Amino acid sequence: MQTLNVALGERAYPIHIGRGLFGRADLILPHLKTQRVAIVTNTVVGPLYLERLRAGLEAAGVRTVAVVLPDGEAHKDWETLNRIFDMLLAERCERSTTLVALGGGVVGDMGGFAAACYQRGMPFIQVPTTLLSQVDSSVGGKTAINHPLGKNMIGAFYQPRLVLADIDTLDTLPDRELSAGLAEVIKYGLIRDPEFLAWLEANLDRLVARDTDALAWAIERSCRNKAEVVAADETEQGERALLNLGHTFGHAIETGLGYGEWLHGEAVAAGTMMAAELSRRLGWIDTAAVARIEALFERARLPVWGPRMGVERYVELMSHDKKVEAGKLRLVLLRALGRAVMHGEAPAGEIAAAIEARCR
Amino acid sequence: MQTLNVALGERAYPIHIGRGLFGRADLILPHLKTQRVAIVTNTVVGPLYLERLRAGLEAAGVRTVAVVLPDGEAHKDWETLNRIFDMLLAERCERSTTLVALGGGVVGDMGGFAAACYQRGMPFIQVPTTLLSQVDSSVGGKTAINHPLGKNMIGAFYQPRLVLADIDTLDTLPDRELSAGLAEVIKYGLIRDPEFLAWLEANLDRLVARDTDALAWAIERSCRNKAEVVAADETEQGERALLNLGHTFGHAIETGLGYGEWLHGEAVAAGTMMAAELSRRLGWIDTAAVARIEALFERARLPVWGPRMGVERYVELMSHDKKVEAGKLRLVLLRALGRAVMHGEAPAGEIAAAIEARCR
Ligand SMILES: NC(=O)c1ccc[n+]([C@@H]2O[C@H](COP(=O)([O-])OP(=O)(O)OC[C@H]3O[C@@H](n4cnc5c(N)ncnc54)[C@H](O)[C@@H]3O)[C@@H](O)[C@H]2O)c1
Ligand SMILES: NC(=O)c1ccc[n+]([C@@H]2O[C@H](COP(=O)([O-])OP(=O)(O)OC[C@H]3O[C@@H](n4cnc5c(N)ncnc54)[C@H](O)[C@@H]3O)[C@@H](O)[C@H]2O)c1
Ligand SMILES: [Zn+2]
Ligand SMILES: [Zn+2]
Repeated sequence: MQTLNVALGERAYPIHIGRGLFGRADLILPHLKTQRVAIVTNTVVGPLYLERLRAGLEAAGVRTVAVVLPDGEAHKDWETLNRIFDMLLAERCERSTTLVALGGGVVGDMGGFAAACYQRGMPFIQVPTTLLSQVDSSVGGKTAINHPLGKNMIGAFYQPRLVLADIDTLDTLPDRELSAGLAEVIKYGLIRDPEFLAWLEANLDRLVARDTDALAWAIERSCRNKAEVVAADETEQGERALLNLGHTFGHAIETGLGYGEWLHGEAVAAGTMMAAELSRRLGWIDTAAVARIEALFERARLPVWGPRMGVERYVELMSHDKKVEAGKLRLVLLRALGRAVMHGEAPAGEIAAAIEARCR
Repeated sequence: MQTLNVALGERAYPIHIGRGLFGRADLILPHLKTQRVAIVTNTVVGPLYLERLRAGLEAAGVRTVAVVLPDGEAHKDWETLNRIFDMLLAERCERSTTLVALGGGVVGDMGGFAAACYQRGMPFIQVPTTLLSQVDSSVGGKTAINHPLGKNMIGAFYQPRLVLADIDTLDTLPDRELSAGLAEVIKYGLIRDPEFLAWLEANLDRLVARDTDALAWAIERSCRNKAEVVAADETEQGERALLNLGHTFGHAIETGLGYGEWLHGEAVAAGTMMAAELSRRLGWIDTAAVARIEALFERARLPVWGPRMGVERYVELMSHDKKVEAGKLRLVLLRALGRAVMHGEAPAGEIAAAIEARCR
């Protein structure tokens, strides 16, 4: 087991990464406030892992209650969030009860937002079970639900007290979901970790083949990158925004097609190609660099082209995105491979051309 | 105009109290992040004051949008909150847009919670227009909506950047609402300010008669008390809980009768009498002290008896309340007039007897 620390002063917390972790109540117990836990999971993950988590806790004397939500991004909405509140209140959970989110990013984002709001804040633990949630969404305290007019529009910054990333849970993860997680892994290499990028170019096929050691290393290195960025800029006033490489384009794809059509990571991959193409047009990276990125995503079995929705629709959806300041579209672009920057001055014509060039 | 400061480090903010304030854009402008404001108000307050607020801002070059919510505690729910999000997204408000809540505590609590959640947090300004919201709810950053199973169960701690308490707006406030606000004013005297309590005993009739100088002084002194408590204990780990004198009993009344039957301040007055009676039974204050409290509330035209709902129903509703820790009912009681304490050891029989004694 590897342990990283997210250095956030009095809100600091550990990330444990390894095998056979989530049945181990001894890892969870030190972080509970009282011997009560409310578990949030969904209809896919619950049948696979809920009982083992509960059994471990109950055996250690912790009373547990659980709610099993419908699966999928389409349910990352208020109605589903409210089911968590209904359960917490029906079970008379207190503000000292700890909420544990067991699932992927959707369960983690909703569980975290529910924990942030229930009685204005209850303790919260993440048990991420997808690659994407292990390397990205479970770390850093962003929580949210979607609104029909925009993704993740309603939420909170709310840090967990512990992240338990159990690699064993990836055994049951569908290939397509594993690939989606790899999009965020590759992202860290592209925005701030050229050494990791080189490692990925050498080892990507091991990851796709689910080599456990390779996965453990990639998760640890990704979490380390995420933790560093979050510790430096918890509420995204600056550097943290760089984690959104490909996301403004990607959110347009997700919203434009309707949540759930493309996976988040797939949209991020295609969106990153648009960001790379725009960076090339600004003269920051060359054609060979764009081709290297494309090759990595392709080896990860990720889409490298956006869907044809019309450039205007893309731009309209992108300007609904959060990364808009005073009406200006601010985008994360690549100054070099391994170095992302925030840029608010890309000409509208170049943005349109980059989108156009990367749709098929 | 008087100005107080809520000393919360980098989240510190001023409270301006006086006449003719809310039309003055010069007081608001320094606290905006961009020249865009989204105003949240309701069908009662909007027709009275919205245009003056908007006109002042627009004349100063600030673009404004507004949403007018249905009036009343019964609408302090998710559906109504969502109307704020709908407006913010439809108008493409950014996370740098400032949300201004213009209204009583219901509008303030919902506007504040919406601001806390919209894109994970946008700047927020309180323009409270009821006595209760001027002396209590607009200061201190508690925001929330109700859930069918409990009041204020879903919310956030989220501080405003400015509170503008304009005494002129009280001209249109119904007598019953003025009285409800006085319950919270009296509360500050009871829990921590014996000197203010004496002033209230001497001047309560001036407040009921809406003497402007008396009101200005009572609002200032109340805000000073609230600001001190909040600065010492922002997230209610300790002292801040004392502000809930009478509230656990009161919330049982509000929930038991259905939101909106009794006003919050009315329930707090009757609830405070129950807390006083329980304090007397514990031997902390004497019958004369209870009578003094009762006399003050009666002069303020507030109820001093709870509704007959059955003691068991009270206790059941009270244990749904947030002030429960590890299954124990923790209550704010009076060690003396002007000194409240948190107490978790009152015998259940005495709690029941106190409720019984103060129902009619
Ligand atoms: N909070 C953040 O910082 C952040 C960062 C990135 C993404 N996100 C959010 O995360 C979400 C995407 O997360 P995700 O990719 O984990 O999606 P997800 O939670 O929908 O999980 C993908 C699918 O895999 C299933 N699943 C989960 N674990 C499994 C397992 N061990 N075995 C088999 N099936 C399993 C899920 O039930 C679901 O059907 C999006 O909503 C996105 O907005 C948040
Ligand atoms: N956040 C906190 O710390 C805190 C503290 C105490 C109370 N509260 C909450 O505050 C709410 C009660 O606030 P309230 O008493 O202001 O109720 P309210 O907001 O419902 O206002 C009372 C009534 O007066 C109307 N009104 C408001 N201003 C007016 C004006 N100037 N002229 C004429 N009519 C006017 C309102 O529209 C409403 O009909 C409750 O929901 C309570 O939970 C919150
Ligand atoms: Zn992402
Ligand atoms: Zn109150």
